[in-house]
Formats: sequence, C-alpha cells, structure tokens
Amino acid sequence: MDNRQSALNFAEKNHKQFLSGLEDLVRIPSISTDPDRAKDVLKAAESLAEKLKKLGVEKVKINPTKRHPIVTGEYLMAGSAQPTILVYGHYDVQPVDPVELWNSKPFEPKLNGDLLIGRGASDMKGQLWASLCAIESILHEGEFPVNLKFVFEGEEEIGSLNFPEFVENNKELLRSTVCLNPDAGMIDAKTPTMVYGLRGLAYFELKVYGPAHDLHSGSFGGVVHNPAQVVAELIAGMHDAFGRVTLPGFYNSVRPLSREERKEMARLNIGDEFYKNQTGVSVLWGEKGYTSLERTGGRPTLEVNGLLSGFTGEGAKTVIPTWSMAKISTRLVPDQDPNEVHQKMIAYLNKKAPKTVRWELKLLSAGYPSISDIKSGESQALAQALETVWGIKPIYKREGGSISVVADLQKSIGMDSLLTGFGLPDDNIHAPNEHLHLPTWYKGIEALIHFFYNARKN
Amino acid sequence: MDNRQSALNFAEKNHKQFLSGLEDLVRIPSISTDPDRAKDVLKAAESLAEKLKKLGVEKVKINPTKRHPIVTGEYLMAGSAQPTILVYGHYDVQPVDPVELWNSKPFEPKLNGDLLIGRGASDMKGQLWASLCAIESILHEGEFPVNLKFVFEGEEEIGSLNFPEFVENNKELLRSTVCLNPDAGMIDAKTPTMVYGLRGLAYFELKVYGPAHDLHSGSFGGVVHNPAQVVAELIAGMHDAFGRVTLPGFYNSVRPLSREERKEMARLNIGDEFYKNQTGVSVLWGEKGYTSLERTGGRPTLEVNGLLSGFTGEGAKTVIPTWSMAKISTRLVPDQDPNEVHQKMIAYLNKKAPKTVRWELKLLSAGYPSISDIKSGESQALAQALETVWGIKPIYKREGGSISVVADLQKSIGMDSLLTGFGLPDDNIHAPNEHLHLPTWYKGIEALIHFFYNARKN
Repeated sequence: MDNRQSALNFAEKNHKQFLSGLEDLVRIPSISTDPDRAKDVLKAAESLAEKLKKLGVEKVKINPTKRHPIVTGEYLMAGSAQPTILVYGHYDVQPVDPVELWNSKPFEPKLNGDLLIGRGASDMKGQLWASLCAIESILHEGEFPVNLKFVFEGEEEIGSLNFPEFVENNKELLRSTVCLNPDAGMIDAKTPTMVYGLRGLAYFELKVYGPAHDLHSGSFGGVVHNPAQVVAELIAGMHDAFGRVTLPGFYNSVRPLSREERKEMARLNIGDEFYKNQTGVSVLWGEKGYTSLERTGGRPTLEVNGLLSGFTGEGAKTVIPTWSMAKISTRLVPDQDPNEVHQKMIAYLNKKAPKTVRWELKLLSAGYPSISDIKSGESQALAQALETVWGIKPIYKREGGSISVVADLQKSIGMDSLLTGFGLPDDNIHAPNEHLHLPTWYKGIEALIHFFYNARKN
Repeated sequence: MDNRQSALNFAEKNHKQFLSGLEDLVRIPSISTDPDRAKDVLKAAESLAEKLKKLGVEKVKINPTKRHPIVTGEYLMAGSAQPTILVYGHYDVQPVDPVELWNSKPFEPKLNGDLLIGRGASDMKGQLWASLCAIESILHEGEFPVNLKFVFEGEEEIGSLNFPEFVENNKELLRSTVCLNPDAGMIDAKTPTMVYGLRGLAYFELKVYGPAHDLHSGSFGGVVHNPAQVVAELIAGMHDAFGRVTLPGFYNSVRPLSREERKEMARLNIGDEFYKNQTGVSVLWGEKGYTSLERTGGRPTLEVNGLLSGFTGEGAKTVIPTWSMAKISTRLVPDQDPNEVHQKMIAYLNKKAPKTVRWELKLLSAGYPSISDIKSGESQALAQALETVWGIKPIYKREGGSISVVADLQKSIGMDSLLTGFGLPDDNIHAPNEHLHLPTWYKGIEALIHFFYNARKN
C-alpha cells in the first residue's frame, strides 16, 4: 500500500493548482491583532474547514475561543498500530504596516519569478498549505499511511493567547504521537532544517505619564521631567555595555548552552556574514561572549518593537508630551518563565523609574521556551524525508523565534513537536514584501509526502 | 487731541463686536507647519489685510515669501515728531493633535463662561486682534496719537524661517522707534507682565537607521543594534544626573544670571507650587542649583518633542524596526547661538552614536535669544498703561519661550521690542483646548489704548 511514487507524481503535476489554492488563502486579510479584521480571520478559518472536509477529514469543527477560532478535525483510518500525527498550523498573519514600503498590495498575492509575494505567503499560510497539499497528494493516490489530526489556530501572531486553555480543555481531541509544526524555517534553500529549541516571549507595553497635558516647551522646558526623555532613559538602562539585559535576575533561570550545542552550532555555516546579508547592517551587535547564532538561538534578548510620543508629523511642534509609549519584548530561552520575566520588568521599573512620572506596564503576550527530543521515530522519519529531497542530512538548530504552542502541547499533553518548515531567512516575514520561494515550497510538499510514508510502522 | 476717554468708552461698548471678529479669525485653520493648510494660512493673511484697509491703513500689502506671506501696512499721520510703533503679530497657529483630547472642535470657537476656546484664541490671534481693536477704538474717536506700521507673519509657529530675510530686505519699510509685540503672556490674571528676555530655539529631527528593513525580533533579536534602542540611548545621554545638558560646550556662551536678576525673579510669586499647578505633576525636575523660574527663563534646556519607531498600533508586533525618529529641541539663552548649538549636537552624535547604525540630523528651526532695554520712553509708556488698567506696576521677566523675530529686528534694524500680552499660563497654548480669558483680554485692549496715547511725545 505504499503509493509514495504516485503521490509524488500527483504533487509534481499539480503545482499550479496548489499555488492557486495558496493564493486564495493569502487573499484573506486575517490580521489577528486588528479588531477590525476579526471577520477576515474567521473567513480564513472557514475556508480551511471547507478544505479539510473536501479532503475527507472527519469531525471538522470551528471551535470558538474568546477571540479567534481553532479549527480541528481527524482522519484516523490507518489503524491503532500506526502513529497519529497532529498537523498544526496558524492561519492568522502579522499587520502590514508600514504599508507604503510594499511594492505590491499585501493581500493581492503577486508572482515575481520564483517568488510569491503577499502577507502570510511564508509565515505561515504557505507552510500550512504545504501540509494540506502533501496530504491531498497521498489521499488522491491511495490510503493514508498514518493517522491524522488537525489543529489550526488564528492567534499565533498575537501570542496564541487562547491556545493553552483550548489544549487544556481538549486533551483527548488533540492527543497524538507527535505534532508536525512547519512554522520554523530553513537556514537556506539548500539546507533542510529541524528546530529542536525555541525561544519564549514576554511582550510588554510601557506607558510613561508626565504632565497632565502637552506643555509648551518654552514656558515649561526646565521644570518637568519629559516622559519621552524618561522612557528613553528607562530603555537605555535595560542593557549594559556588554549587551546584556539588566533586568534584575533576568539570567537566573537561563540554561547555559552545552559544549556540544556550541560545537554543533559552530559547524553550521551561519556566521556574521550571513547575518549582515540578511539584515543589511555593516556592524553587528549583541551580548559579548557569544556568536551571532548563539545570541539569536541560545541566549535571551530584549528588543524595543515600537516607540511613540508627542509630535511625530512633518515639521516642528514645540511640545513637552504628556505621555510616551514603548513596546518592549524579551525573547526567552529554557528555563526562563515569561511570567517571572514580567515580574523582573516590574522590579526594574520600580527601581529605575523616577518619581517625576507615573508608569503603567501591560503584558501583551507570553510564551514559554521549549526543547524537544530529536531521537524519536517520527523525528527520524522527518529527518530521512528531508534528506531524501535535499540530498543532505538536515541540520538541527535552536531557533530565535517563539512558538508558544510547542510549549503548550508539551506541558498539557506531554507531546513533542517536529519543527520544520520551508520558509527562508530572507522571506521578509513580519515585514514589508513578505514572500515565499516556490521551488523550495514544492520541495517541502515532496518532503512531507515522504515524511507521512516514513512515519508508518511496519 | 487726546480722545483717550472716548476711545476707552468705544472699546467698552464694542466687546461683543470685537469678540465676533476674533472668532472669525480663529475659524481659519491657519496651521503653518501643515502643507495641506497653506491656503488657509493665506486666507488668514488676506482677512487681516482686509481689516487693515477697513481701518484706513495705507500701503497694505501681502508680501509673498518662500512659504507663508507677510502682511505689511502703515498709518503715518501723527507727524515726524512722534514715534512710530511697529505692530507685530503672527496669524499662524500650532497643529491641533492630539485632536481627540479637545472638548470642542479646535477651529469652531466656543464660548464657555469667561473663556473663548479654540486653536490660536490665545496664541496669538487673540493678542493680534487686541491690537487692532485698540487701534480701531482710537481711530473711531479721533486722530491717532503716534505713527503706526504693521508686520503680520504666518510662520511664527514654525520658527519664522523667512522673517529674517524679509526684515533684511525691507529695513526701511519696517524701521520704527520700537516694535510692539504682544506675543508674550502674563504670569497671572492680576499681574501685568513685560518680558525683557527671551529664549532662542534650535529644533532638530534626528533619524537613526538600523537594518535595511523591519526584522523579525525572534530570528534577529541579538545580532543587530535596534535603532529604537539606539535613539533611546542617545537621548538618555543628553542629560547628566544633575539635569544638565551634556552636548559638548553647550553652556560655553551662556550669560550667567546676575545677582540682581535672580533677586528680581525671587520676588515674583512664581514658585514650585505654581509650576505644579500648571503642569499637573507632583514632582518637578530640572537643572540642579536653579529655581524653577530661573530654569525656564534664564537657563537653556533640551526637550524631546516627539518619538516614533516601529509598531505603535494596538497589540503586539514582534519587529526590530528599520529606523527611529526623535524630534529634539533646545531652548537657548543669551549669548548662545542656534547654529553653534547645531554644531554641538552634531559633535555629540559623532562622538556618541555607535557604528552599528547610521544617523541623520536636520535643523528644522532656529532662533536667537534676546534681551531688551526696559528704560526707553516707549517701554515706560507701556508700563504706565499696564499699571493704569491693573492698578499695579508690571513685573519684568525673562520668558522661557522663543520669539525669534525679536532677535531678528534687533539684529537687522537695531530695533527693540516691547514684549507683553494678555494670555495666561493656563491657556493651554500649543495643547488641546487652548483658550483665551476674555475679561483679561478686554483689559488688554484698554491697556493698549492707553499705551498709544502714553507713547505720544508732547
């Protein structure tokens, strides 16, 4: 019953149709953070539910949450001796601003040579759709070699806020041998990649309040502490001269990188030149004592994601602003806890914020870091599939991004995730002109077909 | 020919008509910094030219500049033995954002008890209009006791950029005994005020450029210097722990406050409580070793007027921004030079900005500080007029704000300005809900009538 080759042939012949389906999905502006887009987020969920039904998936359900729904379904036809793979995806996308820097409309997918340009094309509508294309290819040619479950959420880009509760309340619905999560990328188009460690996230909004209203900077410059200056002073104090985060106790729970891990990382061809090319900066920056790859994957960081205060239009307006705002997030590594980091941020502000102002801190999003077992049968099945398609063994790495659902599934159900994906580092995810490299994407579909067959137990 | 009492009576009877004229002027949204409002700025100029013509003023002209026009005119009927007063005003106003904090529409003037609410009602359409009402009252009842010239500009709120060149090219047109400039305020409604010193201004826009585009903070957090963090670090470094500005050599040309000045300032009832009430803050801040009044009037300061970087909308977006922007201005005292301060800012940035980023600095606006002679006959005439109406001698003070035209007239024509005005510290100028205290304004018109008669030489 191994129709592997027929399935691969079907996939090969249907590139155009696969792409057209993905374009339809990218057209839906499912920006989860924007309340005005809630209907579009729902529309994306509905279109995926429809697709699952068309594939023959059973018990397809759009489960409401406090915000955006979670789509589930199952296809358990391979018998209880076979493993069950939970296919994870998120159908929500990042906002599109600054929209003026896009060369095409973010939600009108555009082909440019080998690239499909559009918000979500890479992160992760393209990855989710690749799973469905692989499954369609197999189902079209015969029986499915393993059992399948599905969980597609609409809140990943806002921190998967309702996912933990959903998992906690639906353990049996979701319980599987392993979760396939293609939301991690490749280090380059030649090198298949499996991610065994992820950073967590604690994302804050800090507001600093000064005078009761905007003041004339001539009449009052010199008597009040300017909240834009104060927020700058607070941010400036969050790193020391060695690029280390100064929140008290921030590094207490950080699991040091082992000698083996640092050795494996050093073997990867991801050095400073790689990061300079990706970012366009000529001088890199970061925590002293670690390589660039170690700093993004194995060490925690703190970033300013946004700043706003006072007059920001054209020209000059001589105000002392009444408030200032900063969006600040920390990327966390095992065994840091986002809620503990929240407390450390409060402690920092209590210690450092001057009495001349009032401040408010909101935790907008929190996710735990995670580390997975790379020796399991399913992990090996995926590694073998990637090697078959790309001709080299995948590299194993720790990823700088945060996928809190991986930690949620591990915590609630004890389930590991297989983290892979076919996005590339220069896909501009979360940025203008996000795109998907189609030749890599087609290879990804092929690799997933191999994976499902490889995962079958004889 | 002293029809002083008739003129005062006329003014008294015409409060309603005066107010209605002011409301018409406030209705014109003449925001000089906003290119989309250029026609409205012109409209304000035209309406003032019309008004001057109606008063019988001769040679009324709307002089174009590179941006907004300057209205001039003259009324030289008193003979060459009499002094000529150049009446200065600006008809442009500040922007209105944050517009959501206004309780009424900024350009639909609204009466609320004794207050007229609207952008420009106090700064300075109300003050300019008060001059015209006083002149109208005198002309209605008889001949004018002194000669008059007029100069009304439309760029004061953006630093009077084209005024210096206009003065330089029109010295004879403008040359007068003294300039009456009612763009300075009172310290409170009971205390008439004459300003003999003004701070200058150097207003900058600083942009810091980091990565070539927004980056995913997970994938790249830890390898690039975040431009929002860098701008915060640069701003934080611009003051030391004693509230002093750290730009190298910033204080070199500062004329120290004399013992007499500090004594006169100490006599004024403007202490910390005053500033706390005006600003709504409970703890003041500023340069150590000086009182609040000294810090705002007699010492230079540096303010952040605006901050913008990255994602500033609702919710969380995990980007490392590609650039950050800060609007930063310095208030200067004699004998600082805004162009020298520009160089000092560049020197600071050259020294402090890290090599991990690129920066750009624009000087958006520059004005010199100034100090005037308080012993001249016209200055005494004004002091006497204020005393007549308010029943106490005016106080003399140095003002924190910047009126660069005062320095321009002094430099090009050697002409002093008489700085007074009838705005109050809590008028919310440059802020939401700007308003004018009408009882004070009517007194101001009365005082100006006295001034013109007092200024006549026997």
